[in-house]
Amino acid sequence: MTQFTLDSRLIADTIPVGDLSLSRVLLMNDSRYPWLLLVPRLPDIREFIDLDMTNRARIWREIEDVSEMMRHEFSPHKLNVAALGNVVPQLHVHVIARSLDDAAWPRPVWGVGDRIPYEPDAGQVLAARLSAALGYL
Amino acid sequence: MTQFTLDSRLIADTIPVGDLSLSRVLLMNDSRYPWLLLVPRLPDIREFIDLDMTNRARIWREIEDVSEMMRHEFSPHKLNVAALGNVVPQLHVHVIARSLDDAAWPRPVWGVGDRIPYEPDAGQVLAARLSAALGYL
Repeated sequence: MTQFTLDSRLIADTIPVGDLSLSRVLLMNDSRYPWLLLVPRLPDIREFIDLDMTNRARIWREIEDVSEMMRHEFSPHKLNVAALGNVVPQLHVHVIARSLDDAAWPRPVWGVGDRIPYEPDAGQVLAARLSAALGYL
Repeated sequence: MTQFTLDSRLIADTIPVGDLSLSRVLLMNDSRYPWLLLVPRLPDIREFIDLDMTNRARIWREIEDVSEMMRHEFSPHKLNVAALGNVVPQLHVHVIARSLDDAAWPRPVWGVGDRIPYEPDAGQVLAARLSAALGYL
């Protein structure tokens, strides 16, 4: 059985937040939006429907939990939830807290301008805060 | 209690496919991609987490069913599954069958060029075919 490995492009663009029961949670290192990724810790998964029934139920629940947490922490105007994977096929689910004055509104965030990384300390502090918030759900 | 009504912009851009247990299924009238929308037939729902637990389970299941059907019918290179709602806030879930030679690949489909509507007959025929395919899942 192949082992889970995180795509190098996902590692490069993110700050680790923590592990839920199925998914690794990553903070996109882009200070323009509160933007999390959920990546199931299983090998060879491209689509939701590549997951077995147990893990489908897990990831839906984790999307709900992360969404509730994002709503509580950021009071977004709208959440964006998406699994695209055209560039990085490893299944990763975006949960993005959108606001009316963010850099891309009302467009989707992908491909709009360049990432603006967090200041190193700020990224770590935010990741720790979101990790704690997920723990307290 | 408010009644369910479909946002007029969703009506304008789509061809009806049919109703699942929770969602109305719509075919995006854009011949560049096989592209379905799922819209829960409930009033005042903007986010997945606005649904109660029973209906959350329903919509996840319906996303799985529509995804399986799309994979079977179109053998896409990748499925895109997304709930954005920045322009039309009524919850609608995109399930899009992407291929390596489609008009937007590898970009997301939103905001890329203009819709190319189906020929009227072709759109109705495809909607009927997908409706049947969903019934036979």
